[in-house]
Amino acid sequence: MSQLKGACIIGQSGGPTSVINASAYGVIRTALDSGCITKVYGAAHGIKGVLDDVLYDMGQEDAKELEYLLYTPSSALGSCRYKLKDSAEDDSDYKRILEIFKKYDVRYFFYNGGNDSMDTCNKISKYMQSVGYECRIMGVPKTIDNDLFGTDHCPGYASAAKYVATTCMEIYRDARVYDTGMVCVIEIMGRHAGWLTAASSLANISGEGPDLIYLPERDFDLNKFVEDVKAVYVRSGKCIVAVSEGIHDSTGKLIAEYGAENAPVDAFGHKQLGGLAAYLANYIKGTMGCKVRGIEFSLMQRCGAHLASLTDIQESFLSGKTAVLEAISGTTDKMVGFERKYDEKGNYVCGIKLMDLTDVANTEKKVPLEWINREGNNVNKEFIDYALPLIQGTPDRPLENGLPRFARLKKIQAK
Amino acid sequence: MSQLKGACIIGQSGGPTSVINASAYGVIRTALDSGCITKVYGAAHGIKGVLDDVLYDMGQEDAKELEYLLYTPSSALGSCRYKLKDSAEDDSDYKRILEIFKKYDVRYFFYNGGNDSMDTCNKISKYMQSVGYECRIMGVPKTIDNDLFGTDHCPGYASAAKYVATTCMEIYRDARVYDTGMVCVIEIMGRHAGWLTAASSLANISGEGPDLIYLPERDFDLNKFVEDVKAVYVRSGKCIVAVSEGIHDSTGKLIAEYGAENAPVDAFGHKQLGGLAAYLANYIKGTMGCKVRGIEFSLMQRCGAHLASLTDIQESFLSGKTAVLEAISGTTDKMVGFERKYDEKGNYVCGIKLMDLTDVANTEKKVPLEWINREGNNVNKEFIDYALPLIQGTPDRPLENGLPRFARLKKIQAK
Repeated sequence: MSQLKGACIIGQSGGPTSVINASAYGVIRTALDSGCITKVYGAAHGIKGVLDDVLYDMGQEDAKELEYLLYTPSSALGSCRYKLKDSAEDDSDYKRILEIFKKYDVRYFFYNGGNDSMDTCNKISKYMQSVGYECRIMGVPKTIDNDLFGTDHCPGYASAAKYVATTCMEIYRDARVYDTGMVCVIEIMGRHAGWLTAASSLANISGEGPDLIYLPERDFDLNKFVEDVKAVYVRSGKCIVAVSEGIHDSTGKLIAEYGAENAPVDAFGHKQLGGLAAYLANYIKGTMGCKVRGIEFSLMQRCGAHLASLTDIQESFLSGKTAVLEAISGTTDKMVGFERKYDEKGNYVCGIKLMDLTDVANTEKKVPLEWINREGNNVNKEFIDYALPLIQGTPDRPLENGLPRFARLKKIQAK
Repeated sequence: MSQLKGACIIGQSGGPTSVINASAYGVIRTALDSGCITKVYGAAHGIKGVLDDVLYDMGQEDAKELEYLLYTPSSALGSCRYKLKDSAEDDSDYKRILEIFKKYDVRYFFYNGGNDSMDTCNKISKYMQSVGYECRIMGVPKTIDNDLFGTDHCPGYASAAKYVATTCMEIYRDARVYDTGMVCVIEIMGRHAGWLTAASSLANISGEGPDLIYLPERDFDLNKFVEDVKAVYVRSGKCIVAVSEGIHDSTGKLIAEYGAENAPVDAFGHKQLGGLAAYLANYIKGTMGCKVRGIEFSLMQRCGAHLASLTDIQESFLSGKTAVLEAISGTTDKMVGFERKYDEKGNYVCGIKLMDLTDVANTEKKVPLEWINREGNNVNKEFIDYALPLIQGTPDRPLENGLPRFARLKKIQAK
């Protein structure tokens, strides 16, 4: 394959993770060190930065600050949730992107995101091919939801999983200090796939995790839920429940909406929402009369870089690096995926595979139903075996004043 | 002072912290290693364990498991919120305690807790003196609220402060990934004292903390709050707010109750509470129409041992150890407090002082008003100088399977 000389753009898109910048660093560092990539641009807020012509010249950043990206949560270049229209319908965005690509002689485009971002990648790539503009386009995955099709797992998932499992263990201890009854409902992210909620089960390896775990892969029944909680509570006086934000009943209606329906309207006519955890905790209090607490892991689960998995950081970096090396060697239209391998001692090893963007875009991977117990209120050993290797390793994260030292980029705009 | 031979009891009381067990370990280890303490008993659920005659024989625990207490959050012996009556009013509890003390030949009593626990200590001590039972009684402080009178700071505060500051920095990054507006309201523990909420300001050393910080030491005005948020939001498109759960208006009414008043009543007639953060976030959404998020640090801030301050762990251990050594050497009726010192290089050093239980019990220490800015929406450098040395140091916490390895006590009941 011929060597293609030109600049590259790296953009970040969708909800951030603790390690999304480790992937970006994998792209940036490798691109800066390559012979044929002439300039490395970071797009401000993903594809919006391309459309708005706001590109940062990454070559002007200090090498040390770039390295801090390994430990810095949340898209350092900025993110967006911009969805490109089909070019057949409206090609104005594509024309603009082509214009910018030409302006900066962009021959490599790396997009760091989830399903939607792979769709963006795919559409841009198809357009560039249709107009005969040579450009190599690679997807670099990220998502705490772990729902990307075709890859064993996604960068960002393991660190969020480690946050969830560790925090559940701590809450388990806290919820047990008094000799009085206590039901604790923990709400975890994941609208359509229960991967992250399932990670709470890792806390049960040492017996310090949730008693009940509900994923959106199975229908949720409020009465069955109360019966489940009661059974645990009668036995032990405590019950810790992990629920995915996306749990829904058999009609597909979100349980979170049950609470929203009865939510009070404030002076401005807006509904005051308390969240799923608060709703379920209140419901249990109403039926059982016991002490309850609803806890939402909220943004912390996706930005808790202080609990990042070293394995996840390394794999995230590797996915970015691989995207660049593959593109340089001629690959295009692919997302870098992971393949699970084991060495001769049976230890987990992360293999790399390349996947067609067309296959990845807009398809969701869910927790296999056979990994969920018959009752639909827990996961089994298959899940533990799957997730445990991913959360291993503690990075030597940089500190300043006893607090995290995140990357401070200069973000010098390219002319 | 004569050497007093006999057993000791250590009990834990009140809300737990990340390092309350480091204090307990200071007591247990020192007592086990002492010559004159014949037996070391852990009371199950604080003073309730004494009243119920449920004492664990700490001498039968593995030394290694006891050492893990340094890194194990939440009262390992169990806690309680039991308040002793005045003995003049009803002395049945005291008679029972005396009976148990005699049964086990208890001559040392160490109580690990906050204001109420110091009150318990004090009452028991006065009673034992009144009936002529020789027993040395020492208070070992703990509280994330940092509100104990007379001591520079309290074991448990710094670790919670480190959790708050670190997490605020991560949320700051997360809240900035999109180029759209965002107001984030973070609710932090502390009903009467704002120490822990003030700790969010440590995140501002690197400019990655809340824009606005509201403590219960100052009256809170909802209209002023909206004006404050608007001013920041107009300037930067983002606004992060930290509020103490105990903020109240000028009549003393809790802002959290504002939301409760309008809370919907569920099928069982119970009010569905969404929490202060949710209330304020919804209120901002109503007045400003922007994207909002309410976040509650909930139990995580007091059990987040994975972010414990090494300084806090060491000082907590020291307070427990000092209590035992002092009691052995004849001291009684004191709480171990901290005194701030500086070495010749100006570095913070923790000094020890002993305080009368009578003075400590039931008095609350608040954030000095002169450490709060004139607007009442932030704290100043005096607070930073005070809190920063306390959060320093990262412990080498034990892990198993990439997750915390907490102490697993056998809890063998004494006969």
